[in-house]
Amino acid sequence: MGKGRLEAFSDGVIAIIITIMVLELKVPEGEELGGLHHLLPVFLSYVLSFVYVGIYWNNHHHLFQAVRQVNGKILWANLHLLFWLSLLPFVTHLAGENHRSATAVALYGVVLLMAAVAYFMLSRSLISHHGEGSALAQAVGGDAKGKISLGIYAVAIPLAWAAWWATVLLVALVAVIWLVPDRRIEKTLTSNAE
Amino acid sequence: MGKGRLEAFSDGVIAIIITIMVLELKVPEGEELGGLHHLLPVFLSYVLSFVYVGIYWNNHHHLFQAVRQVNGKILWANLHLLFWLSLLPFVTHLAGENHRSATAVALYGVVLLMAAVAYFMLSRSLISHHGEGSALAQAVGGDAKGKISLGIYAVAIPLAWAAWWATVLLVALVAVIWLVPDRRIEKTLTSNAE
Amino acid sequence: MGKGRLEAFSDGVIAIIITIMVLELKVPEGEELGGLHHLLPVFLSYVLSFVYVGIYWNNHHHLFQAVRQVNGKILWANLHLLFWLSLLPFVTHLAGENHRSATAVALYGVVLLMAAVAYFMLSRSLISHHGEGSALAQAVGGDAKGKISLGIYAVAIPLAWAAWWATVLLVALVAVIWLVPDRRIEKTLTSNAE
Amino acid sequence: MGKGRLEAFSDGVIAIIITIMVLELKVPEGEELGGLHHLLPVFLSYVLSFVYVGIYWNNHHHLFQAVRQVNGKILWANLHLLFWLSLLPFVTHLAGENHRSATAVALYGVVLLMAAVAYFMLSRSLISHHGEGSALAQAVGGDAKGKISLGIYAVAIPLAWAAWWATVLLVALVAVIWLVPDRRIEKTLTSNAE
Repeated sequence: MGKGRLEAFSDGVIAIIITIMVLELKVPEGEELGGLHHLLPVFLSYVLSFVYVGIYWNNHHHLFQAVRQVNGKILWANLHLLFWLSLLPFVTHLAGENHRSATAVALYGVVLLMAAVAYFMLSRSLISHHGEGSALAQAVGGDAKGKISLGIYAVAIPLAWAAWWATVLLVALVAVIWLVPDRRIEKTLTSNAE
Repeated sequence: MGKGRLEAFSDGVIAIIITIMVLELKVPEGEELGGLHHLLPVFLSYVLSFVYVGIYWNNHHHLFQAVRQVNGKILWANLHLLFWLSLLPFVTHLAGENHRSATAVALYGVVLLMAAVAYFMLSRSLISHHGEGSALAQAVGGDAKGKISLGIYAVAIPLAWAAWWATVLLVALVAVIWLVPDRRIEKTLTSNAE
Repeated sequence: MGKGRLEAFSDGVIAIIITIMVLELKVPEGEELGGLHHLLPVFLSYVLSFVYVGIYWNNHHHLFQAVRQVNGKILWANLHLLFWLSLLPFVTHLAGENHRSATAVALYGVVLLMAAVAYFMLSRSLISHHGEGSALAQAVGGDAKGKISLGIYAVAIPLAWAAWWATVLLVALVAVIWLVPDRRIEKTLTSNAE
Repeated sequence: MGKGRLEAFSDGVIAIIITIMVLELKVPEGEELGGLHHLLPVFLSYVLSFVYVGIYWNNHHHLFQAVRQVNGKILWANLHLLFWLSLLPFVTHLAGENHRSATAVALYGVVLLMAAVAYFMLSRSLISHHGEGSALAQAVGGDAKGKISLGIYAVAIPLAWAAWWATVLLVALVAVIWLVPDRRIEKTLTSNAE
């Protein structure tokens, strides 16, 4: 089974997720827009979530460059990842509107944690389908960033009840870790091509 | 006529349907998010509908792998399927908000029933275009799962007026039946390729 | 310039238009869903608009099968068509909520008229780019259906102030005319291929 | 790394942006739709933003025709452009509802300015990846239109506090400048092909 439609469908879902989050930025009522500054936390949560969805799209793109074929299990592992990403607009709005609420900030962290778990499961399904000695398996490698992210989320979520801003900082830290370009797969593919 | 744009258009519509359902998860008003637990039935109906749309996308993907060409009648049979799927976000929200209402739960069942009928009609159009002896016709086969699903829906819908939870359980049962990987088409295609 | 991205972009926009219309079906408030029957005109206007968008997608699909290349003018003629189609969800909701209002029903007709004009302009741009003797020009032919549709809209719109249901019937009649499969382009392409 | 998925993802995001803006056109409450004329500024801001998104899609399309390959930096430069474009529906609605508010109109200008800056950064990333002597670099050329646009935005934004309509006129002027077909890249590609 080819990977074309899986990529096209994932691109579609991720494109919609990254775009509909902005629908939560509601125009405030009242004269001369004095209420606009109340939108700042909502706007910042939008920026953070936009960056996260961008990271997932980039990683998905890199990962599937090394994919040769897919099967039914991989289709569902991919849908599982898209499920958790589809909850991002909801928890983004929840946390943006209630950024001092431990529950809201913790739920934002839980959705990110589950998306990271789903991404890990997807990459394991792909490796088991392509073989441990495949270019894909080499390219994914030890997945240090993925493991570090899971560890940080596990610390950040309970921390929300002590200090919501610490959770936000840790979650933003994970985004920064991923923003540093991940050249693993790119390099392995290049060296295989040589 | 090639199948490329039909697949791309269907992927787009299904990607939007699966993603906009989450817009119905509204952030509750009030202090400390005590109202979040009221969202549980809405969330569970979202999960069920997400799984259903995922099943339809998977089945559509499998079915069209065996498709060689399409005609105007098939384009409309496909749009007919997309029409009923497009109503899923509405009935998902309706049933999630009113899960004890027989009307709401029954309407959810009716939309699923009509989507199943539309899928059956689509596969018949495809078989009549490719011929009864085609790889596609062999791959679709007796369509036992499809027939069982129609039977369960027919029982589940009137049951809503007796016990809404029985309808929900039966509808969830159909999803489980489909989640068990359907290797019919995959196998036939593989054995034809050998 | 290739037609691939124009088709993909148009598919995306049309997929979104056909899907977001359902967001206007709002779950009514109140016990036992007694208010559901008030949704009937909104639902019927949704069905009519879904059929219309399906017709435009089908016709666009057929038309571009005969297209060899595009230029900047064609990109804008296509965006012009998408603009009028993008207004369909708004006028669908407007007419569905106010189906006895002459203004609402007439505006629905005006958007359909403008979409038909835009489609005509798009097909003229394509013919002028491919040449009057091209397979595309032959395939479009005299465009009798297009001209008849424009005539019916021109009658139907002012009629809204006399009898809203006459406008609705005429608009539905145009949809029926188009639903009868249009084999012009398909046939010309097939006979050229022979 | 191929450009296919970047184009498909960008097409998806831009298709959603251009379409969801129309969701802000809310059906007015009340008898006989007397309130419809209040929608005129909202409608005009929708038309202007539709044209702007159309211009960006056209320019993106032209630019990427000359692109041979992409890297991680280019993926992020493209996401940066999509981020600012994704804010257009919000500021379109803000400015449409409050067109006499200096803040609203200025914010609309700021988002357009940042999108223009992001587009400039994207084209620089692409040129640095393909080389200053590449067909792409020749095709982009001196980018006079881009520089003029940045200059007009820089004047138009502070002007909002003096005369909101002057800002709107200048922003519309930039759209007109871009609507005049940009044949630079097309011509260079054609002459290279000869």
